[in-house]
Amino acid sequence: MSTTEPTTTEPINDSLDGALLTAARGRRSDHLPVWFMRQAGRSLPEYRARRQGTVMLQACQDPDLVTELTMQPVSRHGVDAAILFSDIVVPLVVAGIDVDIVPGVGPVIEAPVRSLEDVRALPQLDPAGLDFLGTAVRRLVAELDSTPLIGFSGAPFTLAAYLIEGGPSKDHALTKAFMYGRPELWDELLSALAEYASVFLRVQAAAGASVLQLFDSWAGALPAAAYERYVLPYSRRVFASLDDLDVPRIHFGVGTGELLGLMAQAGAEIVGVDWRVPLAQAVSRIGPGHPVQGNLDPAILLADWDVIEAAVREVVGQGRDAPGHIFNLGHGVLPQTDPEVLTRVVDLVHSLPAR
Amino acid sequence: MSTTEPTTTEPINDSLDGALLTAARGRRSDHLPVWFMRQAGRSLPEYRARRQGTVMLQACQDPDLVTELTMQPVSRHGVDAAILFSDIVVPLVVAGIDVDIVPGVGPVIEAPVRSLEDVRALPQLDPAGLDFLGTAVRRLVAELDSTPLIGFSGAPFTLAAYLIEGGPSKDHALTKAFMYGRPELWDELLSALAEYASVFLRVQAAAGASVLQLFDSWAGALPAAAYERYVLPYSRRVFASLDDLDVPRIHFGVGTGELLGLMAQAGAEIVGVDWRVPLAQAVSRIGPGHPVQGNLDPAILLADWDVIEAAVREVVGQGRDAPGHIFNLGHGVLPQTDPEVLTRVVDLVHSLPAR
Repeated sequence: MSTTEPTTTEPINDSLDGALLTAARGRRSDHLPVWFMRQAGRSLPEYRARRQGTVMLQACQDPDLVTELTMQPVSRHGVDAAILFSDIVVPLVVAGIDVDIVPGVGPVIEAPVRSLEDVRALPQLDPAGLDFLGTAVRRLVAELDSTPLIGFSGAPFTLAAYLIEGGPSKDHALTKAFMYGRPELWDELLSALAEYASVFLRVQAAAGASVLQLFDSWAGALPAAAYERYVLPYSRRVFASLDDLDVPRIHFGVGTGELLGLMAQAGAEIVGVDWRVPLAQAVSRIGPGHPVQGNLDPAILLADWDVIEAAVREVVGQGRDAPGHIFNLGHGVLPQTDPEVLTRVVDLVHSLPAR
Repeated sequence: MSTTEPTTTEPINDSLDGALLTAARGRRSDHLPVWFMRQAGRSLPEYRARRQGTVMLQACQDPDLVTELTMQPVSRHGVDAAILFSDIVVPLVVAGIDVDIVPGVGPVIEAPVRSLEDVRALPQLDPAGLDFLGTAVRRLVAELDSTPLIGFSGAPFTLAAYLIEGGPSKDHALTKAFMYGRPELWDELLSALAEYASVFLRVQAAAGASVLQLFDSWAGALPAAAYERYVLPYSRRVFASLDDLDVPRIHFGVGTGELLGLMAQAGAEIVGVDWRVPLAQAVSRIGPGHPVQGNLDPAILLADWDVIEAAVREVVGQGRDAPGHIFNLGHGVLPQTDPEVLTRVVDLVHSLPAR
């Protein structure tokens, strides 16, 4: 017993410490790092138990709850990173915009932003309103020890889409009509939202987040030319505002196969890839020098283990050409996913050669 | 006057006659043919007026109404083809499955298909139940004169997605879980639905439809490997069943940028492209020998004319490398589109050199 004591007091995943940051810096470590988008969420019974009786947007602003919910999947699955428990629209909420998350629907904006007056009336995001966020991040960083915390924010385009549509949308027609039809007002709106995202991310970095992810959930709705003209400049502004921090940044959107090359120019080191693009293909579209994150189809986790295992191995194999690879799903964990399968995927990814 | 009489009795778009079929056969005519997905629909005041008080799925089975609604955009816009007024789920309805189209939601299936028993209980699609369809197509062909009629059906995967989810879905998780998790049952289901699509399309061709389009609306939700294994064989079966007809076929899905090369192998001559992929890129992914259809972002039609015109010219320019190009949107006309803009787009496309 006594001879093994010193090693057993080490963290259980000691050999993995730093795997995520190593990959994020574009280098290969012995183990491939892995985390899951929406790992803190409805797939976990402990999450559902803890969330009972709470309202989503209040939960996101409660440092105790944020800390606990963020920690749950780290303790359970042994993932290589925690992701702050939050929601894309929290920067809007904190700015004072009336948002409600309606179960089964998604975020609903009380007064959609569609006119010059609406845009001009948008409040500034006061960092003073973000105390809860700094507190949660500081607690998490202390509790996580060497496991990195990923902070995140919704990207300007995705925030704009929620504001303009007033809620989730299938075709984003109102957003695109605004964008194509009123480019000057669009510039004002996206500039304001770039500032929101920047403030929201800086607070997290200042409190100790090791990595920052900018989620542009709906960017994939756009043709590449429109993305380049109407979206990229504002995402670029967000990343540029973080350049001084020396914190690796991830840029991700869904259905962005045609946009990967442009997204790689926004300023983030790491580009996240959804499950539609074979990862090797994505690596070539993204271009040299960028680590990638992704990209297992979340729905594959609902299949039998042999199907899952083959798919995980395929993704790991395809990621080998990138300078660094952070294994993840191509979008969030589906609520009906068996959490034991997630743990098994973590173990499998850790068991595979990372180089 | 008398000298011009013989020519003025010709159809007004005489010079365009055959443009669609020429492009569909992979050749270039003087004018680029153009039609719009969902051209018979809510963008037209005459459509809204005529549909008032009718239920969608009943309207789709009423030959008088189908004829009238199909003709409306042809008369108004001077497009180069009519598309049968119908709905993706009509083959299910005609087979006797209880489907309701709920306004603002979409098709809702009373009893979703999720078990072995459900799949085995699926009725066959009896061509005898399709009299309304043959009648409508025959009337249309007579009325349309030289303008071709495009018949259509939902593809097996998309029909399966509706049946399994019980309605529209954001992530198609149940469908994918079924597909990845129960491949043998999936084969039974997709085989039955391939038969539905085949019967539905053959009836239209027999009644005189000049072109057939297989819509796989949701195929873009799948990674390419899954599409190839679980979807392509059944779409291929549908097209193979039409091989004897000498009717050009179009295959289209939304968000299928990564699938274009595979979709081109399904057996259709023409591959439709959504707006996310630059058309020249799509042409190269589809490979040689296939005319293409597409791919203006439908939301661009909500912008100012100069934005629209530039985008139309861009699409036309990018399509020049394909052996044939049928100009279309990358998805259906949005309901809020100004119909006069659609007419103006038709005129613009017709004014541009097609080769």
